[in-house]
Amino acid sequence: MERPGEFELIARHFAPIAGPGGLGLVDDAGLLRPARGYEIVVTVDALVAGVHFFPDDPPGSIARKALGVNLSDLAAKGAKPEGFVLSLVLPKGWTEDWLAGFAAGLAGMATENGCPLIGGDTVSTSGPLTLSITAFGSVPAGRMVTRSGAKPGHLVLVSGTIGDGALGLKVHGPDKPGWVSKLDEAARAFLADRYLHPQPRLALAAALQQHASAAMDISDGLVGDLAKLLKASGIGAEIELDTVPLSRAVRAAIMADPALAELAWTGGDDYEILCTASEMEYPALAAAADSAGVMLTAIGRVTAEAGVARYSEQGTARGFVQGSFAHF
Amino acid sequence: MERPGEFELIARHFAPIAGPGGLGLVDDAGLLRPARGYEIVVTVDALVAGVHFFPDDPPGSIARKALGVNLSDLAAKGAKPEGFVLSLVLPKGWTEDWLAGFAAGLAGMATENGCPLIGGDTVSTSGPLTLSITAFGSVPAGRMVTRSGAKPGHLVLVSGTIGDGALGLKVHGPDKPGWVSKLDEAARAFLADRYLHPQPRLALAAALQQHASAAMDISDGLVGDLAKLLKASGIGAEIELDTVPLSRAVRAAIMADPALAELAWTGGDDYEILCTASEMEYPALAAAADSAGVMLTAIGRVTAEAGVARYSEQGTARGFVQGSFAHF
Repeated sequence: MERPGEFELIARHFAPIAGPGGLGLVDDAGLLRPARGYEIVVTVDALVAGVHFFPDDPPGSIARKALGVNLSDLAAKGAKPEGFVLSLVLPKGWTEDWLAGFAAGLAGMATENGCPLIGGDTVSTSGPLTLSITAFGSVPAGRMVTRSGAKPGHLVLVSGTIGDGALGLKVHGPDKPGWVSKLDEAARAFLADRYLHPQPRLALAAALQQHASAAMDISDGLVGDLAKLLKASGIGAEIELDTVPLSRAVRAAIMADPALAELAWTGGDDYEILCTASEMEYPALAAAADSAGVMLTAIGRVTAEAGVARYSEQGTARGFVQGSFAHF
Repeated sequence: MERPGEFELIARHFAPIAGPGGLGLVDDAGLLRPARGYEIVVTVDALVAGVHFFPDDPPGSIARKALGVNLSDLAAKGAKPEGFVLSLVLPKGWTEDWLAGFAAGLAGMATENGCPLIGGDTVSTSGPLTLSITAFGSVPAGRMVTRSGAKPGHLVLVSGTIGDGALGLKVHGPDKPGWVSKLDEAARAFLADRYLHPQPRLALAAALQQHASAAMDISDGLVGDLAKLLKASGIGAEIELDTVPLSRAVRAAIMADPALAELAWTGGDDYEILCTASEMEYPALAAAADSAGVMLTAIGRVTAEAGVARYSEQGTARGFVQGSFAHF
């Protein structure tokens, strides 16, 4: 079957995802028009087949993840999505069927989150499929939530449940550890889905923008990403590991193999929000999270000990040798 | 030698290139703050080793080209550069020396063109080096120069000289055709440099924004890119090929092998501006180009024949079978 050229491909599969700023994807550039008094938050994430996803993952899932991880960054920054651009680096042997599935997943994610395509580039490679998405959100000027605003005494909070993505990777991947067979079908499906389809916590974005003192998304593991936030804010934290929210599936896996608790705390692919809030702002933030239907759990408190994270489990101090999962 | 981790690497090589909107490259996102009444032009280009450049090109040249081709798009849109983000997808075996050279080239290009780094992502791949840059420029709201504003009677203009990049690729590449040896050393060096180091015509941006009716940059060959502009504007054009500006080096190459004229007109990697202007606006545009020291040459005129480009050479009609060089 003959494959379409770049322009046909764009018209057929990507133009339908384009917003007004995309100008029909027939020009050299797209446009962002922030409302008066707003500025643009810019985030970029690259994903490579065999590193960030499996080459034979469903193309729609790959697309959802590629956009989802960027939207997760926007959510953490308290930004409202405004659009994105895509660099699509296609390996030899791609098919139009694959591309149609990819575009359908991308369209779904873009529509569900109000984040239209405004531009892109498509090139070919002798290597693996590679995607780079740059996503744009808007915040009132000067109000992006940074990593650096946490102060001693503030609460440390996380959205959702932690560790699903890291365990989901094991469940979904080709070399399944023994514990996987001890989970029921629903738990396995839940974990694999959490790995494949990150859900950006955009429902929290406005509340974070108004009430959080610092925030970031958890992409490389809670322990490692908390270390980055502490460094940026010049503060420390005391974390009670028993309070870290775990899903039913992760709890079942830890029952089967207690060593998995460490994987849950340190593994990547959570795409939940890690944030801090003062005692005064916390009630409003918690109420907004409740309204949005997103679980938000206090797991500890900010201290003045710059860069030092103290973890305790059932009252006993606990250290981590390897803090963070690195995609790099 | 141990290679630095991602965070050290960013701090050492990329943070010095960061502008205020980059927030020191320690947060999840960068910021764009358009002045009141301005909007943001967004362009993205991906480059793959072995497709868009040679893997053993100097790393500083690769960096300059990656940013340069994006700045060329901004120039064509009449936009003033405001910043860029970089996805750096590193192959196995990269060295810190390589990276230092890359960052130095990137810093030079960013500084020379007033376009600071505001964010990025660094990942690894089993495939070739891949770069994706998203660049941002500002234009007064509603004033981006599109591809679609050309009207019958307008002049068709190009900046600089055409064909240097396409012939430069042959001069620079590993399989040099016979004509290369017939050029003098200065001509060979000029052409290779034009291929390796595109010069974005940002000096023309303000004048294009004020006086051009349509514009795009020429990246895939004059003939093919003109076809895209005609399609977007719903117009035609009559082009006198004898008036297409050629460098001394390209003229010498055509003397050695007359078939190279077609390569000059259709080959890629010009990164010059193709634009249209009304008779009324042309003098101001030409004067601004003169002031900027950029050659701007009229090569034909817009016609009402939608999508039809008529070429003539020394009074004789001329057609092109293969209109465009495709990177895809």
